[in-house]
Amino acid sequence: MAHKFINEIEAGQTIDDIYIVRDPILRSTTRGDLYIAMFLSDRTGQVNGRMWQATETIYRTLPKPGFVHVQGRSELYQNNLQVIVNNISIVDASKVNVDDFLAKTDKDIKLMFEEIKRTVGQIKNSQLKALVGAFLADSELMEKFCNVPGGVKLHHDYIGGLLEHTHSMLRVAAAILPLYKQVQADLVLAGIFLHDIGKTEELTYDMVFSYTDSGQLIGHINKSLIMINKKADALRAKGTQIDQTLLDTLGHIILSHHGQYEFGSPKLPATTEAFMVYYIDDLDAKISQVTAAIENEPSDSNWTAWKSALQTRLYRKRLE
Amino acid sequence: MAHKFINEIEAGQTIDDIYIVRDPILRSTTRGDLYIAMFLSDRTGQVNGRMWQATETIYRTLPKPGFVHVQGRSELYQNNLQVIVNNISIVDASKVNVDDFLAKTDKDIKLMFEEIKRTVGQIKNSQLKALVGAFLADSELMEKFCNVPGGVKLHHDYIGGLLEHTHSMLRVAAAILPLYKQVQADLVLAGIFLHDIGKTEELTYDMVFSYTDSGQLIGHINKSLIMINKKADALRAKGTQIDQTLLDTLGHIILSHHGQYEFGSPKLPATTEAFMVYYIDDLDAKISQVTAAIENEPSDSNWTAWKSALQTRLYRKRLE
Amino acid sequence: MAHKFINEIEAGQTIDDIYIVRDPILRSTTRGDLYIAMFLSDRTGQVNGRMWQATETIYRTLPKPGFVHVQGRSELYQNNLQVIVNNISIVDASKVNVDDFLAKTDKDIKLMFEEIKRTVGQIKNSQLKALVGAFLADSELMEKFCNVPGGVKLHHDYIGGLLEHTHSMLRVAAAILPLYKQVQADLVLAGIFLHDIGKTEELTYDMVFSYTDSGQLIGHINKSLIMINKKADALRAKGTQIDQTLLDTLGHIILSHHGQYEFGSPKLPATTEAFMVYYIDDLDAKISQVTAAIENEPSDSNWTAWKSALQTRLYRKRLE
Amino acid sequence: MAHKFINEIEAGQTIDDIYIVRDPILRSTTRGDLYIAMFLSDRTGQVNGRMWQATETIYRTLPKPGFVHVQGRSELYQNNLQVIVNNISIVDASKVNVDDFLAKTDKDIKLMFEEIKRTVGQIKNSQLKALVGAFLADSELMEKFCNVPGGVKLHHDYIGGLLEHTHSMLRVAAAILPLYKQVQADLVLAGIFLHDIGKTEELTYDMVFSYTDSGQLIGHINKSLIMINKKADALRAKGTQIDQTLLDTLGHIILSHHGQYEFGSPKLPATTEAFMVYYIDDLDAKISQVTAAIENEPSDSNWTAWKSALQTRLYRKRLE
Amino acid sequence: MAHKFINEIEAGQTIDDIYIVRDPILRSTTRGDLYIAMFLSDRTGQVNGRMWQATETIYRTLPKPGFVHVQGRSELYQNNLQVIVNNISIVDASKVNVDDFLAKTDKDIKLMFEEIKRTVGQIKNSQLKALVGAFLADSELMEKFCNVPGGVKLHHDYIGGLLEHTHSMLRVAAAILPLYKQVQADLVLAGIFLHDIGKTEELTYDMVFSYTDSGQLIGHINKSLIMINKKADALRAKGTQIDQTLLDTLGHIILSHHGQYEFGSPKLPATTEAFMVYYIDDLDAKISQVTAAIENEPSDSNWTAWKSALQTRLYRKRLE
Amino acid sequence: MAHKFINEIEAGQTIDDIYIVRDPILRSTTRGDLYIAMFLSDRTGQVNGRMWQATETIYRTLPKPGFVHVQGRSELYQNNLQVIVNNISIVDASKVNVDDFLAKTDKDIKLMFEEIKRTVGQIKNSQLKALVGAFLADSELMEKFCNVPGGVKLHHDYIGGLLEHTHSMLRVAAAILPLYKQVQADLVLAGIFLHDIGKTEELTYDMVFSYTDSGQLIGHINKSLIMINKKADALRAKGTQIDQTLLDTLGHIILSHHGQYEFGSPKLPATTEAFMVYYIDDLDAKISQVTAAIENEPSDSNWTAWKSALQTRLYRKRLE
Repeated sequence: MAHKFINEIEAGQTIDDIYIVRDPILRSTTRGDLYIAMFLSDRTGQVNGRMWQATETIYRTLPKPGFVHVQGRSELYQNNLQVIVNNISIVDASKVNVDDFLAKTDKDIKLMFEEIKRTVGQIKNSQLKALVGAFLADSELMEKFCNVPGGVKLHHDYIGGLLEHTHSMLRVAAAILPLYKQVQADLVLAGIFLHDIGKTEELTYDMVFSYTDSGQLIGHINKSLIMINKKADALRAKGTQIDQTLLDTLGHIILSHHGQYEFGSPKLPATTEAFMVYYIDDLDAKISQVTAAIENEPSDSNWTAWKSALQTRLYRKRLE
Repeated sequence: MAHKFINEIEAGQTIDDIYIVRDPILRSTTRGDLYIAMFLSDRTGQVNGRMWQATETIYRTLPKPGFVHVQGRSELYQNNLQVIVNNISIVDASKVNVDDFLAKTDKDIKLMFEEIKRTVGQIKNSQLKALVGAFLADSELMEKFCNVPGGVKLHHDYIGGLLEHTHSMLRVAAAILPLYKQVQADLVLAGIFLHDIGKTEELTYDMVFSYTDSGQLIGHINKSLIMINKKADALRAKGTQIDQTLLDTLGHIILSHHGQYEFGSPKLPATTEAFMVYYIDDLDAKISQVTAAIENEPSDSNWTAWKSALQTRLYRKRLE
Repeated sequence: MAHKFINEIEAGQTIDDIYIVRDPILRSTTRGDLYIAMFLSDRTGQVNGRMWQATETIYRTLPKPGFVHVQGRSELYQNNLQVIVNNISIVDASKVNVDDFLAKTDKDIKLMFEEIKRTVGQIKNSQLKALVGAFLADSELMEKFCNVPGGVKLHHDYIGGLLEHTHSMLRVAAAILPLYKQVQADLVLAGIFLHDIGKTEELTYDMVFSYTDSGQLIGHINKSLIMINKKADALRAKGTQIDQTLLDTLGHIILSHHGQYEFGSPKLPATTEAFMVYYIDDLDAKISQVTAAIENEPSDSNWTAWKSALQTRLYRKRLE
Repeated sequence: MAHKFINEIEAGQTIDDIYIVRDPILRSTTRGDLYIAMFLSDRTGQVNGRMWQATETIYRTLPKPGFVHVQGRSELYQNNLQVIVNNISIVDASKVNVDDFLAKTDKDIKLMFEEIKRTVGQIKNSQLKALVGAFLADSELMEKFCNVPGGVKLHHDYIGGLLEHTHSMLRVAAAILPLYKQVQADLVLAGIFLHDIGKTEELTYDMVFSYTDSGQLIGHINKSLIMINKKADALRAKGTQIDQTLLDTLGHIILSHHGQYEFGSPKLPATTEAFMVYYIDDLDAKISQVTAAIENEPSDSNWTAWKSALQTRLYRKRLE
Repeated sequence: MAHKFINEIEAGQTIDDIYIVRDPILRSTTRGDLYIAMFLSDRTGQVNGRMWQATETIYRTLPKPGFVHVQGRSELYQNNLQVIVNNISIVDASKVNVDDFLAKTDKDIKLMFEEIKRTVGQIKNSQLKALVGAFLADSELMEKFCNVPGGVKLHHDYIGGLLEHTHSMLRVAAAILPLYKQVQADLVLAGIFLHDIGKTEELTYDMVFSYTDSGQLIGHINKSLIMINKKADALRAKGTQIDQTLLDTLGHIILSHHGQYEFGSPKLPATTEAFMVYYIDDLDAKISQVTAAIENEPSDSNWTAWKSALQTRLYRKRLE
Repeated sequence: MAHKFINEIEAGQTIDDIYIVRDPILRSTTRGDLYIAMFLSDRTGQVNGRMWQATETIYRTLPKPGFVHVQGRSELYQNNLQVIVNNISIVDASKVNVDDFLAKTDKDIKLMFEEIKRTVGQIKNSQLKALVGAFLADSELMEKFCNVPGGVKLHHDYIGGLLEHTHSMLRVAAAILPLYKQVQADLVLAGIFLHDIGKTEELTYDMVFSYTDSGQLIGHINKSLIMINKKADALRAKGTQIDQTLLDTLGHIILSHHGQYEFGSPKLPATTEAFMVYYIDDLDAKISQVTAAIENEPSDSNWTAWKSALQTRLYRKRLE
C-alpha cells in the first residue's frame, strides 16, 4: 500500500500508516485527563497529532523521534489539520521505506563523489594537496559529506544536497578557471571543496533536517574554519609542512564566501580566489533555488508565488 | 622625445609638451588683469593650468577640448600641482600619438569582436537571432561598441573596455551553460551581448572618458532597453515577427543585471537567465577590478590600499 | 435582489448569486473522484470554491476568468471560508452590474479628463506640446488612461484611479508653480501627465486588477520611458522636431519620480522639475492612502490598525 | 575700498582689511616664542591666521569673536592658505558693513512677516488661534524668528532664512489646502508656522552661523515641542483652555516633519496634516537647495559638481 | 472556583466566568438581526465574543471596557476560537481578583521604590537634587511610576515593570560608577531615574496595557523631556535655580538613551553619561527579555522559537 | 636632548633626531638619478622622507623597519610636510627610549594581570577552570596578552591596551553579576577573559601598531575561536574532559560579542551570557573612546570635532 503523504491528508479521512513521531509531550486537560501532543511527519511536511485518553506508559514507549504506526482520523482544529491518534506503536526502521521520509538527491552520489575526487586531484600545490588529501582520507567525515543536505530550506535541502552543490560548483570552476589565468586554481578548487564542510557538523539528517546545537551556536562557516585548522595540525604533527599563510588564505576564502556581513560572513572577499568562490557559490545556489521554485509552483500561472528570500515572484514561461 | 605624462610632473619643472586642454575659462584677477584657467590632461590624469596676462584673443583660439602645445613650468599652488602656461598653441590631432591620451585594451579588438559574433551566432531562436542580427548589422553602432570604455572608473575603463568585458562574459557563459541545461542559452547569450549596449550612448571617449548628458539623465540600463525596443520596431516594420513577450524577457535581463535596487536596477532578477547574466557580469567585473588593483598597487606591501568600493584592502601575496 | 458581497458571507449560508470565477483547476481526490478548485470574487474580495463530483465537461465550459451564477453553500475549511458549489453556469457580461465587481472612482471621469486636457494645453514649448498632443490624440491609449487603476493595492486602486491621481497632481502643480518661478512649468506639467502612463500596459483591469507579464518584467516606470521615446520617433517620422535633450529631460523626470532606488527609480532626481514631480506624486499618493485607511477603519478606535507600508498606525480623531 | 573677501585671497597678497577673528589661542613654538593662532572669517569663508612674535597683552585685547583690522600677507602653509598677521586691532561694529560678514535673504523681511501673520490669521479653531497668537505676541521671539538662518548649511543658510522658508511653505499650503478638503487647514497652517520655531534657540547668528550647546544637545525639533508646551501652559495659567489632545496633535506634526527616523524625527507621520507639512517642508527645502546649487556652480558645465547630500550631480541646462 | 484563563480555553467547552469586555460593537446580520461583537480578555490573552439575538438595551449596559460575568460556550470560527455569549452581566471590580487580569511584578514595589529613593538621594549637585526631589514629591506621579508597566510587550510588560526596570538599572549604575571616575555619577543617577518617566503618560494599565493617544502621538522619550522642563519651570517659579545647561545635559541623556535613530532617539549619545545610561538600559532590558523568553518557552527544546525582535532563537541549556 | 615628535615638526626646520624608518623604496627620477622614498615615524605620527642622491648601498643598509638617526630639514611638498634626508644611519634599539615610539597604558601591567588572574580564579566549573588555566599557563601567550594594544585606532590603541580593556571589563562583570543571578557567571568571566585573545595574533606592535596578514585574512574573532578549540584539544589529549557543548557555548560568546553582523560578528547573541559580554565590551570601549576624544580635543570649544565612528560631536562641558 502506498504511503499517504502528509501533504495529501485532508480533514475527515481515516489514517492508518507509518510516520515519524517527534517531540511528544504528555499533558493534562483542564479536567485532569492525560493526553499526548506530538508531531507526525514525513518528507512532505508535518502535522499536529493528539492522543486523548493517553497513559504515561504509552508516552514512555514513544521514540523521540522515531518511526511509528499510527491509526486514527484527521480533523480540523483551529487553523490546522490535526490527526486524532487512536493507536500508536513503534515500527522498526528496517521495515520502513526511508525514501518516504527524507528527500534525496536524484543524482548518483557515488559518481558525483568520484568526479569531485578527480577534480581536486588536479591540485598541484603540495601543501594544499596534503590538506585536501587528509579530508578525503577521513572516511567517516566523507560519509557525512556525501549525505548531509545543503541546507534546511532555501536550496539543496535533501540528502546528498551538499555533495551535489559542491560537485556542481567544482564543474563550474573547472570550466571557467582557464579563462582567468591570474586566479590561482589550486586555491579555488580547495576552497570550493571545503567551503561548507562544516555543514557536516551543523546539520542533522537522520529523521528530519535540523540544526545541531553546535551548528546554531557556531555556524558552518566557523566550523569549517576550525576543521581545516585541526586537520592542518594533525598533518603537522605527522611532519607534513602546512604554512600558516596558506592556511589563512584558504580560511579567508571560507570566511568570506557569503560575500556580505549580513549573510554571516565575518570577512569580505579580499582576493580574486575569494571572489570567485563567492560568485560560483551564489550562482549555483540561486539557479538551483529558482529552478526548484519554478518546477514546484502548484498553480498554472506564468508566475510563482512571492519568494521573500528573493524579493520577487519568478517568471516561469519559456521561449517557444 | 617621449611624452612627459601628467602623473610624472613634479613641482619646479619646465614643461614643453602636448596635452589636451579642457574647460578653459577667461577670468579677471582682483586687480582686473585677465587670465585663463584650464585643465591639462593626458591618459594618466589631469592638472590645473593658469595662463596669466592672457587676452581674449588667445582664449577664443583655444579648443574646448582639444590638443595644444604647452610651454611653461610646474609649481605648487594650495594643495595641488599646477602648470603656469607661458605659451599655448593648437596642435593638429594627426600629429599626436593618441595612445598617450586614451588608455586602450591590450587585447585585439578585431579578434574579440569576431569571437563574439561566432558565439552569438549560435543562437537558435529565430526572433532573438533576428534581433541580435539587427544590432550586428548596424555598423556605426558596432564601431562604437568595439571602442567605448566599460566605465569611467572602477573596471574596464579604457578604449575597448566594453568589448573586452562582453567578450569575457560570453566566454564564461559558453563554458557553463552546458552545466545548467534548464537555463535557456539563447536568452543568456543575447542578454550578455546587449546588457550594456546603452553605454555606447552613455559614455564619450574622444578626448577623455566622461558621461553624456543623456547618459547621466537616463543611464545605460534604460538606454539599452530603449535600443532593443527600437531595433525590434524597425524589424517589425520590415515584416519580421518579434513577440513582445520575448522582448520583455530580454529587457528584464537587461533591467535586472545589476542585481540590486541600490545599484540602479529597477527590477530584481526573476528568471534563471537573469540571475546568470547578473552573476557573470559581477564576477567578470570584480575579477577584473581586483586584478587591476593588485597589479597597480605602488607599494611593496602584501596589501593594497583600502578600496572603498569593495570595503576592504586586497591581499596580493600568492602561494609559493 | 442585492448582490451578496464576498466580504459579507459567513459560514453556513446559502449562496445563489453571480461572481467572477478565476483560475479553475480540475483535480482528483485520493479516491480518484474529480473536483474543481476555483476562486470566486467580486470587488470586495475573493473566496475559495470547490465543486465536488465535477466532470471534465463542466470544467471545460468555465470561463477563465468570467462571470458565473453560483448555487451552493458556504462553510469553513481549514483557516478559510469556502463555497461548496452545487451548480455553476455562465452569465453574459451584459446582464451583470459591473460596479459590483470592480471598484471605481466616485469622481466624474469625463470631467477630470477635460480638466487635464485644459491644464496640459497651457504648455508653451512647441516640442513638448507636440509630444503631449500625440498622446492625447491616441484615443485607444487615452481610453485606457481614463480607466486603468492607479495600482493593485496601496492607493487609487480602482477604475479611473490613475486618471484621478494624475488629475489631482496637475491641480497641485498648477497651484504651486507660480510660487517657484525658476521651475520650468512645461516640464512639470508634461512630466505629471506622463509619469505613470506605462501603467496602461502594466496593469489589467477587465475582471480583476492585476499585473500583466510585461508589467512585472519591465515595470511601469520603464514602460513609460519607452512609450515617450516611441511617440517621439513617430512624430519625427512625420517631420516634427523632438530634440533628444528635451526627451531625456522629460524621461529623467519619469525615471526618478519614485525618488529612491529602493522604490524602483533607477535614477535619483537631478533637476528642480524632477524633485517637484516626485514630491507632488508622493504627497498626493500618501494623502489619498491615509485618507482611505482612516475612512475604511472598521473599529471605533481613535487609531487605525498598523499600516506596514507606513510603519505606523494612523490617528483618526479630528479637532472639535 | 571694497572688502577683500576671504574666498578671493590668493597666496602672496598683501592683506589690509577688516575680518572677524574667532577662537584665538596663545601658543609657544618649540623655541619658546609666543604666537597667536586664530581664524579670520567673513561671509564667504574662513582662513587660518598666525601672528608670530605675539605677546600675552595683544592676545588679551582680542575679542572672541569680534571685528578686527588685520594687516599682513597671505601665504601657503601645508595644504591651506593662511594669513601672517603683522598688526591686529579691534574695530567697532558700528563702523563695519555687516552685510560683508553675514549672508542675508534678498527678500523683504517685514513684508514676509506681514504675509505670514495674515495667513495664520485665517486659523479658525479658537485654541490654535490663541496658541499661535501667543507666539506672535512674543516680540522678542518674533525678532529672532525673523532673523535666524534656516540652517548652518544645506539650505536657507542666511539671515532671515527660517522666515523665508516658513513664508514659502505657508504660500504652498494656502495654494493646495483647498484641493484636499479632508485635511484640517488650521493644523497645517499652525504646524508650518511653528515647525522649526526651535531653531531660534538652536542657532546663533551674531557673527557666524553656528549651533548653541542647547541646540546640539536637544535639537530644534524637540525645542519646538517644548516651546509649544510652555506657551500652552502660560495660556492656561491665564485661563485660556488648550486641550492636551490638540497640543499633542500639533506636537506630532512637529516631531514627525522630517519624515524618517534617520533624519531625526522620533515619530513617523500618522495624520494627513503631518504628511502634508512633511512634504511641503521637504519640497521647499529641496527646490531651494537645488536652485542655489545650480546658480552657484562656478563651471560652465551642464552639470554641477557631485552633491553628496542629494547623491547626484544636478543638471543645469534649461529648455530652449 | 479557579478562574479559567483565556489561553486555556479550547473549542467545545462551557464558559461561566469573569472576563474583561472590550470594544463591544452592535451590528446587524444580513438578515437584519442584531448581535454584539466584543473582545473578552484576561491577563493571558483575548478572544472574540459574539452574542446573537442581542438588543440595544444589553449593548448599552456593557462597560467599555469593564468586568463582566459571561455564560456561554467556546467554538471555532474561521481561524480563531470564539465564545458564543448567552448571558452577560456587569461585575463590580471589588469582587474581582485583579491579579487574574493584569500581570504584576513579583518583586516588592514598596521596597524597590525605597531603594530607588536611597540611591538618587546620593546625588550631590544641588540643582539635580532639587529637580529629582520635585519628582519624588509629586505623589500622584510617583504612584503611577510605581505601577505603570515597562512596555506593552517585549520586556517588563507587567504592573510595576517600569519601577522594576529603573530599580535594576540604578543598582547596575551604583555598582559600576566607582569604576569610571570620569563619568559624572549625579547625571547618570538622575538620568536613569527619569529616562522613561514619560511612560506614566504614554501607557494606560487599568484593565489592559495599551498606549494613550498622547503616548502614540508624542512618545515617552519626548514626554519625559517635556516633564523635566515643566518641573524645572515650576522650581524656578519658586526661586530654585536650575541652569538651562544642566537641564539640556540631562535632557540629552533622555533623548539619546535608545542609542540609534531607528529606535526613536532623535539625538545620538554625545557624553559618557549618555552612553552609560544607554548601555545600562539596553543591557537590563535585553537580559530581562531573554530570561523571560527562555523561561516561558513551552517546548522541551534546547532552543526557544525564533524571536524576531532579536533575530535569533535563544539557547536554553545551562552548563552542568 | 628631548625627542622632537613628528606632530611637532613644522616646515623649514632642521631635523637631527632618531625615528623609525619604514617601507623604504629605491626609485629613480625622470632624469635617472636614484633617490629613496621612506616613512619616518614615532608614536605621534608619520611623515614622508626623501633622500636625494641616494645610492643602492645606502638603501641596502636601511632596516625595514628599524631605528635610524636622521639629519636633514623639513619642507612642504604638495599637501604634506616631508623631510629631506641628508644623512641616515642605523641606531641600536638599546640606545633608544622606546616610550617615544610606542604609546603605552599608564596603568600597571603587572597589577592588572594579577587582578585578572584573581577574578577568573573564581570560576567554579571544572572544565572552564581547566581551559582558562591552560591559557594562563601559556606564558608566551600571556606575555603578548599583557602587551598587545586593544586596537590600531578607535580605543585602547596603546601597549597594554587589550589587558587594560579586559581588566576593566572583568571589574564591571564582577560588580554586576550578583545583580543577575540567572546569568552564569563562570561563562561571563571566561568569555571576557578570552573574547579578544585572538588579537595577540591579529596585531603586531614591535615598532608600530599594525595588522598581521593572518589578522587581516581571518580576524581576531575567528582567531580567538580557533585558539580555544586548539587549547581544548591539547587538554583532551592530556586526558582532561572538555565537553563540546561547553566549548560551543563559550565560542558563541566570542563569535557574537560584536553584537551585529555589520561589525564582524558572524552570530548574533543567543544567551544571556553572550548579551552581557557584548554590552560590557561595548560600554567599556565607548566610555574609553569618548573619554580619550574629550581629553585630547585640542580646541577650547565645548564640543570636540565630529567623530565619524560615533556620528556626532562630543560635549565636553561638565556640571559645575
